[in-house]
Amino acid sequence: MKTDIQIAQEAEMSHIRDVAASIGIEEDNLELYGKYKAKLSDDLYDKIKDNPDGKLVLVTAINPTPAGEGKTTTTVGLGEAFAKMNKKAIIALREPSLGPCFGIKGGAAGGGYAQVVPMEDLNLHFTGDFHAITSANNLLAALLDNHIQQGNALGIDPRQVVWKRCVDMNDRNLRNIVVGLGNKTDGMVREDHFVITVASEIMAILCLAEDIKDLKARLGRIIVAYNFQGDPVTADDLQATGAMTALLKDAIKPNLIQTLEHTPALVHGGPFANIAHGCNSVRATRMALKLADITITEAGFGADLGAEKFMDIKCRMSGLKPDAVVLVATVRALKYNGGVPKDQLSDENLEALAKGIVNLEKHIENIQKYDVPVVVTLNSFVTDTDAENEYIRRFCEERGCEFALSEVWEKGGEGGIALAEKVLETLENKESHFHPLYEDGLSLQEKIETISKEIYGARGVIFEPKAAKQLAKIEAMGFGNMPVCMAKNQYSLSDDAKKLGRPTDFDIHIREAYVSSGAGFVVALTGAVMTMPGLPKVPAANNIDVTEDGQITGLF
Amino acid sequence: MKTDIQIAQEAEMSHIRDVAASIGIEEDNLELYGKYKAKLSDDLYDKIKDNPDGKLVLVTAINPTPAGEGKTTTTVGLGEAFAKMNKKAIIALREPSLGPCFGIKGGAAGGGYAQVVPMEDLNLHFTGDFHAITSANNLLAALLDNHIQQGNALGIDPRQVVWKRCVDMNDRNLRNIVVGLGNKTDGMVREDHFVITVASEIMAILCLAEDIKDLKARLGRIIVAYNFQGDPVTADDLQATGAMTALLKDAIKPNLIQTLEHTPALVHGGPFANIAHGCNSVRATRMALKLADITITEAGFGADLGAEKFMDIKCRMSGLKPDAVVLVATVRALKYNGGVPKDQLSDENLEALAKGIVNLEKHIENIQKYDVPVVVTLNSFVTDTDAENEYIRRFCEERGCEFALSEVWEKGGEGGIALAEKVLETLENKESHFHPLYEDGLSLQEKIETISKEIYGARGVIFEPKAAKQLAKIEAMGFGNMPVCMAKNQYSLSDDAKKLGRPTDFDIHIREAYVSSGAGFVVALTGAVMTMPGLPKVPAANNIDVTEDGQITGLF
Repeated sequence: MKTDIQIAQEAEMSHIRDVAASIGIEEDNLELYGKYKAKLSDDLYDKIKDNPDGKLVLVTAINPTPAGEGKTTTTVGLGEAFAKMNKKAIIALREPSLGPCFGIKGGAAGGGYAQVVPMEDLNLHFTGDFHAITSANNLLAALLDNHIQQGNALGIDPRQVVWKRCVDMNDRNLRNIVVGLGNKTDGMVREDHFVITVASEIMAILCLAEDIKDLKARLGRIIVAYNFQGDPVTADDLQATGAMTALLKDAIKPNLIQTLEHTPALVHGGPFANIAHGCNSVRATRMALKLADITITEAGFGADLGAEKFMDIKCRMSGLKPDAVVLVATVRALKYNGGVPKDQLSDENLEALAKGIVNLEKHIENIQKYDVPVVVTLNSFVTDTDAENEYIRRFCEERGCEFALSEVWEKGGEGGIALAEKVLETLENKESHFHPLYEDGLSLQEKIETISKEIYGARGVIFEPKAAKQLAKIEAMGFGNMPVCMAKNQYSLSDDAKKLGRPTDFDIHIREAYVSSGAGFVVALTGAVMTMPGLPKVPAANNIDVTEDGQITGLF
Repeated sequence: MKTDIQIAQEAEMSHIRDVAASIGIEEDNLELYGKYKAKLSDDLYDKIKDNPDGKLVLVTAINPTPAGEGKTTTTVGLGEAFAKMNKKAIIALREPSLGPCFGIKGGAAGGGYAQVVPMEDLNLHFTGDFHAITSANNLLAALLDNHIQQGNALGIDPRQVVWKRCVDMNDRNLRNIVVGLGNKTDGMVREDHFVITVASEIMAILCLAEDIKDLKARLGRIIVAYNFQGDPVTADDLQATGAMTALLKDAIKPNLIQTLEHTPALVHGGPFANIAHGCNSVRATRMALKLADITITEAGFGADLGAEKFMDIKCRMSGLKPDAVVLVATVRALKYNGGVPKDQLSDENLEALAKGIVNLEKHIENIQKYDVPVVVTLNSFVTDTDAENEYIRRFCEERGCEFALSEVWEKGGEGGIALAEKVLETLENKESHFHPLYEDGLSLQEKIETISKEIYGARGVIFEPKAAKQLAKIEAMGFGNMPVCMAKNQYSLSDDAKKLGRPTDFDIHIREAYVSSGAGFVVALTGAVMTMPGLPKVPAANNIDVTEDGQITGLF
């Protein structure tokens, strides 16, 4: 059997000019990065901005397991299936981070015959957007420490610096550090922290900004520290905004690539869904809607994280509205949720399936709370049995969801036609009455409680005293009307990664909260979630190599 | 008067396809990055590698002063002048770092009407090469700390980790840090350091590697730490080499841009000359020689740093041979060297000129030690007087150098024709008998003494005990035959930045030495030189901005 990278490397890609032409984009509006990648120019948006919007389909999933779900694979395959049915479809994805690529997960370009290409470029530096974000983030940090060093006219309290440096790498040793050691010329000693680039507020800002003007305004509002009086100090106060914007002027432009079947894919921005808001850029989604009849987008991890934030943050802020949600599961992952060990997932086990399907059930209920129609799909695996598939189909239909098997991993777009037909039926026959889960006017604690109870199924929320104080301060500063971006492990609906299925009788623990005033949300850290991952015992990096003629191997 | 960025932004650039075509490169061998930048494919080198080499001209300068010298400006203008004379010329430059761009120096693309464009792109992310280097550097660091964390099978001594993280930013607070604080899961506590990316050994490796195979071999040889027995641990030992190579697979390809007059410029790699080896990539220079009749390249800072390393490191390792050296000075900089304060440089002052010209004299003598013909040029400034120019002309001619005024800042290529004619005359009539300054067989201490006495004019060298011990260990490990890369301040021939002109009766202080076994040289740190710069009181970043239509301002 061929690996994903073998399939990707054997692909005959179209010139990106031709992919662009297929959705009416002229070469003049492309900034080419080689033959197979391009950025869409700012002029293009001005040209298409009065087009009517197409339909917006969000692909999300059950909680991830080591068994694999295939959310990106399904998103890509669904786009290809629409193309096969002569629908004008665009896929809108996030860009992958180098962290998981060298860590545990490998690449993030879909799988099998439902991939976006060139997969090596996408998984490595792509068009440099993440590097631009890292640079802007770290320029702000350098300017901040330099301000303190050069006399500290703003009176920044070194104990209350909240801006963290970042790196697009899994590097646990940088979680907690002390900087500024040495002599007087080597800076002021203080505690500092690195986060992974995908958790940087600048990533969120890039993904939520409408245009360069909005980007700049948001960057300027970033709170980097508090002064000795306890008042916020912003990027604007440090005169950092213009230079940061200069670093991001190309990164804000969406990237166009293609699937193995030449379906256009806008891949832009990539906040993680566990420690950030988990959605591709507003700008890319908006352009896709103007260019295509159907836009298929994806949000990170399970629906408790990615879909919740898609609805309550991205759609709330931008005014975007999903017309349907596709919820991806696999038989194996549901059995894993039902307690089957990883090495026994190939055996038919209806009892475990019945036990594990409660995870899917909860996500169906959750999406229905937003009044958006749901289509459930099973990403097929060769060991799945008819009895298992039938059980799940019935389960979904009883809950008012359409259901379809997806075989896109094995067959590409062809394998997604059954699913695409169900999605089309849903778009035509069921109306979306999308609304966010909660109102802006609730207090921050109430918002956290609403998400925890309604989406996670928690009994209650325990606010650690530090977090409660932080939330009170954030409200006192006037940011109480912002939505909340929950930082939670992705494996469980609860904040304890080990509780699979549909846990009950648990509390969510809020240990820290801070305001991302540029992004426009308040982050609440739950449980033991960390904004800088570590590498595993055997990192994926150990297996990556390059042949003498420049071919990359071992990336998956 | 127009600023550099205004002139650059008003330029009518040719499509890079057409610039490439002017030196016989077909579009198939280009990887476009927008319309005005391209990488040259690996296939191209295979195609041209049997072409005869053209002539190689190195542009270097006196020690830099706040008065400005214009080495890059001269390099660019000289290339344009040759083009005007219908010579097939290519310019081979280094890429700029974000550090100086946001710090004190601003951009590095030449000046006035002798610039390479697009200057904003070049000064910001360009084609992402530096970001790729930063990523590869920091991946190695993360893998190293992860190895220690996950059981430390190689027995790495955390007190003897020599691999440093890097960032392409002036950030003094990262010079000396402690990492791994927090809990057991947050890594092993140890002292750590960041260097600026241009001082990373990976930058040197990228610039010295012949091809991807050589790149990989060099990366694998990097010494990252010593184990508890005192033996070196390498990147190969950490199984990091393949993934690092994957990150660098595009960065190794030279970048093509153009001057304001459409002369082709290969801009590739960018180690600083004070804290690294200061030359653009071997691969770019080699390609330029195969493609053009005359290649004009540049090495960083004054001839004591850039030219010495060009000769003793880059040419020694690669077999490249310069046919002539152009030494750039300005009347103002020579007067500054003669003790004139910055605000009085506009007044004619032959006495100060005579006092300061000793700096130029020393650099002429130095280049002559390599048996390469020297052409001296004065980068004209409006306040220079005929008497001053004449004084310098006579001074140079008495020392066997050709001399020409250069007016490329004001007039572009047209202003460089007098200089180009002198260079042509030199290439036709004077033979280069290039040889490095010292033999491989000398001890490391002897090599350092040779450079210090012969090039800097030092009385002697004082090795601090720690440095002497390090040099002895490096020789014991079998690296004694490598050349030495001196890290020294750029302002003075001595290791004391305040000693201008041609200091005498001084010693060079070697405070630390380490081997860059992948790059293939031994680094000796002199005086107080630092591998991570800081930002000034008012960073250049404060003045950089972007207009609503995406135009960058304040970059200079």
